[in-house]
Order: sequence, then structure tokens, then C-alpha cells
Amino acid sequence: MGRKDKEDKGGSGFQLKVPKGTKDWDGRDMVIREKIFSTITEVFKRHGAVTIDTPVFEMKEILSGKYGEDSKLIYDLADQGGELCSLRYDLTVPFARWLAMNSSVQNIKRYHIAKVYRRDQPAMTKGRMREFYQCDFDIAGSYDSMIPDAEILRITTEIFEALGWKGRYTIKLNHRKILDGIFQVCGVPEEKLRTISSAVDKLDKSPWEEVRREMTEEKGLDGEVADRIGRYVVRKGSKDLLETLQQDAELTANESAKAGLADIELLFSYLETFDILEKISFDMSLARGLDYYTGLIYEVVTEGSAPSTSQSSKPKKQPNGGKAIQDGDDRSNDPSVGVGSVAAGGRYDNLVSMFSGKQQIPCVGISFGVERIFSITKSRLQAEQSSKPPRINDTDVFIMAFGGKGFDGLLPQRMGVAKTLWESGIKAEFLWKVKPKLPQQFKAAEANGVPFAVVLGEDELAKGTCKIKEMGLPEGHPEKEGVVVEMSKLVEEVKQRLQKWELEDGLQDMSITA
Amino acid sequence: MGRKDKEDKGGSGFQLKVPKGTKDWDGRDMVIREKIFSTITEVFKRHGAVTIDTPVFEMKEILSGKYGEDSKLIYDLADQGGELCSLRYDLTVPFARWLAMNSSVQNIKRYHIAKVYRRDQPAMTKGRMREFYQCDFDIAGSYDSMIPDAEILRITTEIFEALGWKGRYTIKLNHRKILDGIFQVCGVPEEKLRTISSAVDKLDKSPWEEVRREMTEEKGLDGEVADRIGRYVVRKGSKDLLETLQQDAELTANESAKAGLADIELLFSYLETFDILEKISFDMSLARGLDYYTGLIYEVVTEGSAPSTSQSSKPKKQPNGGKAIQDGDDRSNDPSVGVGSVAAGGRYDNLVSMFSGKQQIPCVGISFGVERIFSITKSRLQAEQSSKPPRINDTDVFIMAFGGKGFDGLLPQRMGVAKTLWESGIKAEFLWKVKPKLPQQFKAAEANGVPFAVVLGEDELAKGTCKIKEMGLPEGHPEKEGVVVEMSKLVEEVKQRLQKWELEDGLQDMSITA
Repeated sequence: MGRKDKEDKGGSGFQLKVPKGTKDWDGRDMVIREKIFSTITEVFKRHGAVTIDTPVFEMKEILSGKYGEDSKLIYDLADQGGELCSLRYDLTVPFARWLAMNSSVQNIKRYHIAKVYRRDQPAMTKGRMREFYQCDFDIAGSYDSMIPDAEILRITTEIFEALGWKGRYTIKLNHRKILDGIFQVCGVPEEKLRTISSAVDKLDKSPWEEVRREMTEEKGLDGEVADRIGRYVVRKGSKDLLETLQQDAELTANESAKAGLADIELLFSYLETFDILEKISFDMSLARGLDYYTGLIYEVVTEGSAPSTSQSSKPKKQPNGGKAIQDGDDRSNDPSVGVGSVAAGGRYDNLVSMFSGKQQIPCVGISFGVERIFSITKSRLQAEQSSKPPRINDTDVFIMAFGGKGFDGLLPQRMGVAKTLWESGIKAEFLWKVKPKLPQQFKAAEANGVPFAVVLGEDELAKGTCKIKEMGLPEGHPEKEGVVVEMSKLVEEVKQRLQKWELEDGLQDMSITA
Repeated sequence: MGRKDKEDKGGSGFQLKVPKGTKDWDGRDMVIREKIFSTITEVFKRHGAVTIDTPVFEMKEILSGKYGEDSKLIYDLADQGGELCSLRYDLTVPFARWLAMNSSVQNIKRYHIAKVYRRDQPAMTKGRMREFYQCDFDIAGSYDSMIPDAEILRITTEIFEALGWKGRYTIKLNHRKILDGIFQVCGVPEEKLRTISSAVDKLDKSPWEEVRREMTEEKGLDGEVADRIGRYVVRKGSKDLLETLQQDAELTANESAKAGLADIELLFSYLETFDILEKISFDMSLARGLDYYTGLIYEVVTEGSAPSTSQSSKPKKQPNGGKAIQDGDDRSNDPSVGVGSVAAGGRYDNLVSMFSGKQQIPCVGISFGVERIFSITKSRLQAEQSSKPPRINDTDVFIMAFGGKGFDGLLPQRMGVAKTLWESGIKAEFLWKVKPKLPQQFKAAEANGVPFAVVLGEDELAKGTCKIKEMGLPEGHPEKEGVVVEMSKLVEEVKQRLQKWELEDGLQDMSITA
């Protein structure tokens, strides 16, 4: 789509721009985004999920009191008379509101891919957009312990495998009840549980010393208590760590920790059956900010999503030997830069009852950071496919005409062939000129990498034939100059070639997987 | 999804509802809507279209002065500091803004399916939602006359045929230059051209006498001038009408009318080549309200979209012998009721230059009223498929287990089979219980019309086998009790049956076409 004239002065004299923190999606970016969405959606559907769609704005009071300090980031609609409304801040609260309003729905697996809105100020510093996509999958309903939780983690791995991230991501996992148990055992006063928990949550970005200082100096925790916490939260592992914790008599004497450890043991057995245990890191430092989690919590990290606090617009080296993400002009606002995870979620059993006093619907879910996934996917594609011209649309056939002196352009004939191809479901275009020149037509086809041309000429038409030409064949190829086919067999001939081409070139050309 | 507890008092004491004029989409409605979107998108892509996505809100000044009187219906965001923004009112102005900002894009075929926002007050009376979907397709760029216009009409017919509306829709068509010529020839003063044009636009809802009264009494037009207009605007036809008008010496002496008639003549020749001329009604009464049209204008009407001014919530009889649309409780706010068209558009060659002084990009486009198309499609499906239980998700296989005394539920085995099926891309579910009862499992599968069950039993597993059972087979069918297959061949066996089932039942079950 070429260069953008950003912040242009338009014909009306005002600045021509999109609002701060928002962007237009077009060209190759749009193609990649659509492919990511369809890849993710396919996995959700494989597990029986359905989608629901809620309004982009909610009653203001629905959002009130759900986001703590971040409530100041909520966009309100102007009071133009009538109800007071706000743009949705996430997809979880609208889902809980929907569940509370539809009391006949006692269970559902739902996904929702949609934009959410946050007045983050300033957006650039935090590397965050004000309008951005979320992709949520949640399971609501009462089921036997840890089975839906295990399936969510299985779905998560299927999605990242389908996106071609094999071996390049880790699911960090912890349990709120274990964390609470640890804090209690270490001697954290009840009223400081949540605030100490959010300090621990910073361990992915800050060293223990800094977190300890926050706990003791800012939050007034006793230094010895902090040190005891420190001995727990630096640990990570798998079944080995689980066993170590289960042998910790002080910890297992705590009811909360004991229940959490039993959950993890059961979960690990399910994850082994699902063959995904090796993707998991049981990580005591994972705490997750949101208050509403009640059980298992998890976060997916990848080499490309490691945190960075630099605001430089120069290319950054990522840790872990990962590929550098090009942080050019148009990506200085990119949410993938400097943010720690590409997906996150957990179990929240009490949120629905905040809306619906009468009933409790246990939920577990995950939110995929599609903007970050997009950025990482795009950089990889740029690195891998630099030699191939990107296709923007899906056109399979470009219909052309040529002729000598007195050539009239064969427009009705081109239109007629287009009609025939469209009727058979073949994606076809022709140049919207009465008398186009042949090079013009080839240029239009090549500009978008259309794989086949159907070429019409007066002599051929008189004989009831035309030519099919595969674009971009090397010199010397026997079909370089095209193949003459009967007009009456055109559809069949085109379909055969398309099928072969798709198997050989098309799939890899359009694939977003590695 | 069952009954909704609308306007419930939630656990927090406030009214649990969505904002006025908005709705949640779920269940079967969501499935139908998604199918309509994918049907339409497929046709767009067949013609080489790409999609772009713009922010849901724009700078307030971008929308200012684009919608005339309707500007009062624009939703503003609250002034929370920073830029003043408004929710988009349609998809055309954001597209024109995007074109103006991306000056390297000199031509594009783009579609955009997204929600737009109008503070219509009150929504019920006008049968209009405040948040609703639009589906726009536009062609921008300089091409030879009437070729892109003809392709848009061809695309329109392909979409309605794909939706199963064959023979049940008409494309009304007119030309702004012919209308202007008629008004000039009849003696309408230059400054009254647009206001008289919008009076003519009401002829689809009001008789001529009423429109004549508006022209003369409200708009001060001379009675004789009005009568002369009356003789023109009641005419409709096809090539016959074109010929009649071309023989009208007074009309063809008018430059504007002459140019418009030449366009229509050329267009008709293209529509004949595209084999869609019989879908067209050349209708002198079609004027279209929006100011920005400069050439061809069109509107698609169907038996189900005829206008109705009644606000009754009882079932309505539609004219033209069409099926009645059930106007039940949940559809009293339905935009398909009492609205005249299911798609409309035209050529607008000057809109982009409103944003970008330096350049003019001619455009022609159409907007599909997807909410109306949804309502009509839904009523037809209800009438046609009442005996079939609607499927909400796409699950192909439900994995079950059964056993005698001491049965442990075979959960790891069910999980293992699920994993194997998922890995082959098969959509599969199992009941998230450690020890589910067999009837429970069958009920869960039947509730959603899952076509196949894979049944595990301890004895069969010991022999390395399991059973595949097609659901809903009649008594006496040889495979009623299921077929025993080797566990090692399960994927293959399931895929074979699924393929056969999809050909026989699946396609028609999931189809939205007639």
C-alpha cells in the first residue's frame, strides 16, 4: 500500500489523521492479521467453541469497580442525553455480564475476537495502543476439577503450534491458592496479601532486590517475611518443583497451599495425557495482577515477547538469542515491544456473581495478545519471505486481450470469460479499460502476484480457443508461452492448473507458519 | 441459548442490560450472521477485493459536515482531555479519509464489514439499532466509463444468489445526471434541485400525490413544474424505457440528461454481457438521499424488505405475496422491518477530494444492509428448517465411555482419544467429568446435534478397539449400534465417515441458501 502521508493537512484545512493510539489496518498487515485470526478460530472450533458478540460500549456502571486503579483509563461516551455508556475495556467483563443476563446458559465455551479501548496516557511510552484487539477464550460451567483448565492449556499449545511457534514459547503457570498459602506461611498479614502478590508479579521485569525493596520500603512488610517469600518465589520447574513443595511440611500444613498443590498434581497428570507437560514452567514468581483470579493462573512467553524498558526506536536485540524485532517508525507504538507475554489467563470463579447475585458460574479463560502475536509473526515473515512479493488479494486468474492493428480491446469477450470463471467460483479480474495494452495488463497481474493469465486474441477466439499462461515461469519452460485450450474447456483447464499450483506454491506462499 | 432475563437487577443492584439500541449476538443468530458474512466475503474475494480496517472512532472534525441534518445522530466520546473524537457513522467517510491519507493508493477494491453507530431517537419507531453492522464494497480509481459500475452490480447479484435469494430481489437503478436533467427540463430552479430530488426519493414509500404536495406546499415548487416531473418519475422499465427517453428530444437536448443516458446505454450493454440485465429495474423515481452521489445510483429491494410504517408487534403480512416476517418480542427493534432496501449505493467521484485537496479519486460502491439481510434469512430458515435442531457449534465427534461395576470413567483414555483426533484436525469434545454416566454423555452430544460418537469401553480397549456410532440413525439401521474399529485406525475411520456425512447431511444442514 506504500508510504502513508501521516498527519496530512487535508482539503478541509484540518489535520488528516486517525486518533492518537489508533491505526488503520491495510495491505499485507491486514492479510497477516486475518490469517492469525482464522488460525486461532480454527483451533477454538476444533474444541467445540462458539462465538458471541457484545456491543462495543456498555452501560457505564457495568464497568465501574471492575478494574481498580485502571478505571481511569476507561473511555466514556459523551453525555448527549440518555444513558451513560463507556467503551469496553476488555472482553471478560462483557462476557460475565452476558452470562449474568442469560441465566439459562449454565455452561458455554465461547471465544470473542474484538477490539477493546484504553485511554493509556501516553500510549507511546507504554508501547500500547488505545484501540487494540483482544482474543479471548473462556469456559463457563461447573465441571470436575482441572479438566477444563487442562483443555485450555492444550488449546493454547495447539494455537501456538498452528502459528508456527513450535519450541519458541513457554507456558508459565502458578496457582493463586499456593501463592496465598506461601504468603500466609511466610507471615504476610491478611490485608497485605493482594499488594504483596502484585509486587511478586513484577519479578519477570525486575530483580528480586528491587521487588524486596518495594515490599519492605513501600509496602511496609517485615524484612524477614520478605526474605522468606524470596526463598519461595524464585523457584521454577515442573514435577520436580511440585514434589519439593509437597515435601514442605510447613506449606502443606496450610489449607490453601495444600488445595492448590493438589490441583497442580491433578492438572499435571492431565497435561501428561494431553502430551503438553514439557511446554509448561511451574513458576512461583507468576502472580498476575488482576484481583478476580481464584485458582490456576498462566501466562505464555516467547523469545520475541521478552520485556524491554527501552524506548529507543532503533532495532532492538532480544534476549535468549531470539531474532531482533525491527522497531521502525511505524512500530514505535507496537504493543509487542517491551511487554512480557503473548497470552495470559486463569480461573475466576466469582466474577459472574458480581453481576448476578443469585448464581455462581465458575469460569476459566485465556486472552491472546493478538497485536503482539501479529508483530512477532510479521517480523518472522519479513525475515523468511523477503524474496517473495507479498500477495494482497487472492485473485487466481487475470483475463487479458491482445491484438494487432484495429484491435478493439475485446472487452465484451473479457467480460464474458470473467463471468464464466466467477460462476465456477474462480477468483478472476480483468483490466477495466476498453482498449488496454498488453504490457499494462501483465503489469496489473504481476503487481499482485496473480498466478495465471487467460489471454484472448481475435484469431484464437475465431477458432474457439484461448491461452492459459502461468505467470513467472522461467525462460525455457515448455509452457512459458502459455498453453492453447478449447474455450469450452476453459473452466476445467483453469481449475486443474490451480489445484496443482495451490499444492505446489500456493500453500506455502499464503502460509503464516514457519 | 434460551430465554433472556432482560433488564435484570444484577448482584450489584443496578439494572443489568445492554445500552439502548444495542444487542448481544449469540447462539443460532450468531451462526447465521457469521455464515452471511462469509458468503458475502467469498464473493468479494472472487472479484479481487481486499479488506481494510479503520478505528471505531475518528477525529470529530473528519465526520463534521458530511452527514447534513443527520450529524446530530453522531456519537461523541466524552472530552476526557486530549483529542475530540466521534464513533464512526458509516464506513464510507473513513474509507475516503483513508484514501486521502494514503496518496500512493490510486486504486483499490476494498470491502469492510464493521459496526457503525447512530444515536437515532427513538430507535424503536424507526426500526433502527444504534449499533449495527454495515458491509461496504467500494472501487476507487480512474477506469473506463461504467466498467467498475457494471462489476459492482454483477457482484451484487452474485451475493444475493449465493444467499439463496434467486428471483426474489430487484436492483432499482437510476442516474443522478438524468434526474438533474429531468429537473432542469421540467423547470426546477437550480437551488431547489437537491431538495426536490429528496422529495422524489420518497416515492417508494408515498404516493405521487403526497410527494407532489411536499414539492409544491412545503418546498414552494410551481404546480406545473411538479406535474411535469410527475410524468417522468413514475416511469420504470429496462431497455424500453431507455429508448423512450432517448427519443425525448427535449430531454436529450439537456447536456446532463444526455450524458446520463449515454452512461446507462453503455452500462446496459455490459450488464447484458454479465447476464444480469433482467435483474435490473431502470426506475426514474429512485433518487437516493445522500448528497455525494455524482452518477449511477442503485438500491436492492426484495419481497421481504418492502416498507411498512406500522409499529405493531404482531406478525406482519408482507406485500408481493412474500412470507410474513415474524415480528416477535426480540425483533421489535429489527432494522429489516419497515425499511425499503437491503443494499444501496452509487458513484461518488468527489468525496475523497473533500479530505485531500490535491487529488480526486473517483469511487463507486455499495453498502449491504446486513442486519436486514440477517432478519430475512433467519425468518426463511425458521420456516424451512423448523424440524431440524439447530447446531450451534461444529463439533464432529463426542468421545464417550461406559462400563459396569467399578467403572472408573476412563478419563485418561477419553483425553488421549481427544488429543489424537484434535491432532488430525477433527473437532471433538468429551464430557469434563471423571465418571460420567452414559446417558449424560449422549445427552450432551445430542443437545448440539453432534453427528458421531466414539464410545470407549474397558473390554474393547483391552482388545485395542472402540466403537464409532453415528448419532440419530433410525431403528433397524445396520449400524444403529455402532461399528467396532481398530484403535490404530480410528482417525482414518472417523474421517471417512465424516466426509460421507458432510456430503449427505452436513452441507444442507449448515447451508443458509434456499
